[in-house]
Amino acid sequence: MAVSFTVLHRDKESRARLGILQTAHGAVETPVFMPVGTQATVKTMTPEEVHDVGGRIILSNTYHLYLRPGHELIRDAGGLHRFMHWDSPILTDSGGFQVFSLGPLRRITEEGVVFRSHIDGSEHFFSPEKAMEVQSDLGSDIAMAFDECAPYPSSREYTLEALDRTTRWAGRCLAVHRREGQGVFGIVQGGMFPDLREKSAHELVALDFPGYAIGGLSVGEPKELMYEILDHTVGFLPQEKPRYLMGVGSPDCLVEGVARGVDMFDCVLPTRIARNGSVLTRRGKLVVRNAQYARDFSPLDPDCDCYACRNYTRAYIRHLIKAGEVLGIRLTTIHNLRFLFNLMEEIKEAIREARMIEFRDKFLSIYQDV
Amino acid sequence: MAVSFTVLHRDKESRARLGILQTAHGAVETPVFMPVGTQATVKTMTPEEVHDVGGRIILSNTYHLYLRPGHELIRDAGGLHRFMHWDSPILTDSGGFQVFSLGPLRRITEEGVVFRSHIDGSEHFFSPEKAMEVQSDLGSDIAMAFDECAPYPSSREYTLEALDRTTRWAGRCLAVHRREGQGVFGIVQGGMFPDLREKSAHELVALDFPGYAIGGLSVGEPKELMYEILDHTVGFLPQEKPRYLMGVGSPDCLVEGVARGVDMFDCVLPTRIARNGSVLTRRGKLVVRNAQYARDFSPLDPDCDCYACRNYTRAYIRHLIKAGEVLGIRLTTIHNLRFLFNLMEEIKEAIREARMIEFRDKFLSIYQDV
Repeated sequence: MAVSFTVLHRDKESRARLGILQTAHGAVETPVFMPVGTQATVKTMTPEEVHDVGGRIILSNTYHLYLRPGHELIRDAGGLHRFMHWDSPILTDSGGFQVFSLGPLRRITEEGVVFRSHIDGSEHFFSPEKAMEVQSDLGSDIAMAFDECAPYPSSREYTLEALDRTTRWAGRCLAVHRREGQGVFGIVQGGMFPDLREKSAHELVALDFPGYAIGGLSVGEPKELMYEILDHTVGFLPQEKPRYLMGVGSPDCLVEGVARGVDMFDCVLPTRIARNGSVLTRRGKLVVRNAQYARDFSPLDPDCDCYACRNYTRAYIRHLIKAGEVLGIRLTTIHNLRFLFNLMEEIKEAIREARMIEFRDKFLSIYQDV
Repeated sequence: MAVSFTVLHRDKESRARLGILQTAHGAVETPVFMPVGTQATVKTMTPEEVHDVGGRIILSNTYHLYLRPGHELIRDAGGLHRFMHWDSPILTDSGGFQVFSLGPLRRITEEGVVFRSHIDGSEHFFSPEKAMEVQSDLGSDIAMAFDECAPYPSSREYTLEALDRTTRWAGRCLAVHRREGQGVFGIVQGGMFPDLREKSAHELVALDFPGYAIGGLSVGEPKELMYEILDHTVGFLPQEKPRYLMGVGSPDCLVEGVARGVDMFDCVLPTRIARNGSVLTRRGKLVVRNAQYARDFSPLDPDCDCYACRNYTRAYIRHLIKAGEVLGIRLTTIHNLRFLFNLMEEIKEAIREARMIEFRDKFLSIYQDV
């Protein structure tokens, strides 16, 4: 099988677990955070740097690569791994989320979605078959089924419609998928309706994917509601398959998500806030571009072992960011990813040592969400 | 002495020579190219990367650092080396060139120059004494005397006036300079007038600086005129002192400059054109962002050993640049600097093996200036 998963250890007090995700480009320990390389690059970083901070699998975006530079070009370059010089696993999303986010620029039918490029306004058509073709050309290790993600809030009626379409599209994805060495994950939808989540999970589990994503969360709903729906949904997913919570990656959500049985996460948050001059710490977000750090000669985070924290001060990094220097956002990006990977290591250790709930409670007592 | 220089080998057919420049932060082989780190960073690169491509001494800009983040802040951070995490030699310019380039934003008197910040329009005053104070706070290994660089073209009258002021200001710089471990270089002016170049050189040599820069070249004049003035000026500079041709760094000018007896160069060209998507090759400039490279799966320069050329294709780098991804300009910057440092190595080898003129002629027969 192209993708396989082994649970190594289960926590007794929570749904947290340790596992190994096996792909055509090697194995990855779970729970795992996947940095996002939207345009075939984790913004500002080389692949070696991504690996050095702890990255073992990245996510790349089908929609963006389809539009630029084009999936055929990447296929002709030898696939995405070779094109971007990253030899470890890659997961590609289906393009669905981006296409549905285009709002007035897209039109949905049973066949698929007509949309306009955000780059040049040209018209394009995406369908389950097209999403599989593009991801096959990209050659990712894990492809995602083409789904319809209902925005928040949505009516029960529309959410059900999107869910049913997502199930039908999931079947069409599997029917045409041929790429060797690539596994396809299904995406559970159902919005904020527990019974619809159950319906979606049952229908997709019947299709027997090698892994399941939980989509349609972290789309604007309160975190408590997200946790509630997550708890409920995970209950209907098979124990022996990996569970992937899409688009989630703030430190508190990682801790809470793992405790609820999630194995995989991705999010632009660490890299995006880095480019705005903000860094993650155990106490919460620190906006290093703020004037109060102009003469602060301490590291971004005194507890961090990353390249930025070992060699530079807040004052220097603030100077770089204020001056528009690329090195500034390189350093904040390195720090933020290293921070998350260190956190994931601590989480795995806590699971291994049967103190995940204790770890979570202690972490959340210090961390201030902003 | 804070800065000393030893000529190790002289070419017989040209003025080219091999030397060692000794500073408080170590020794540097000459001839040497200095990458520019205007705002306390060589744009897009870490100090380790600068060193890895071959950088052994960098130039940083007094004017920019004075305005942002401020020389006192850098002094309080432990000096520029520590602030930016670069332990090798640093040369700082005097701020003169930038201040004089401000045009209507500045006013010159015998005392110094009043100018307005390009960042916020605030008014500032620079003088020989101020330039020494700022560079002392920065703690560079080599400080430059505060000079007046006449634009091209300038009348003989104004050029003479600027030259005389430069000499008087050079004396004032030496009179106030106290910083231990820091050497001050004088800057020869005189525009495109051979007799004025001779006058300036004589007056400055009488002040006995540990090194001499040739300023006011590469300011818009034809290259042939620059070479002519350079030839003439070098003849009046002491054999045992390093000679620094300011603001020059295109591959052909490096080869021609070394043959004319220059030991040190700096230029923003390699890093600046990199950010515009252009790279240096032995045949000349290649604009990798051009459409013709969209499907070119060869390296930027097949003869290059840099990180970019070993791991990425023109197609990928073009994609990154078109998509506005920072990694694109990181890779072109790495290549361009590596290209220049490899060229400098070849130049030194040619001098060592007594074939500098042959090397120059062969290089220029292939290289196309654009």
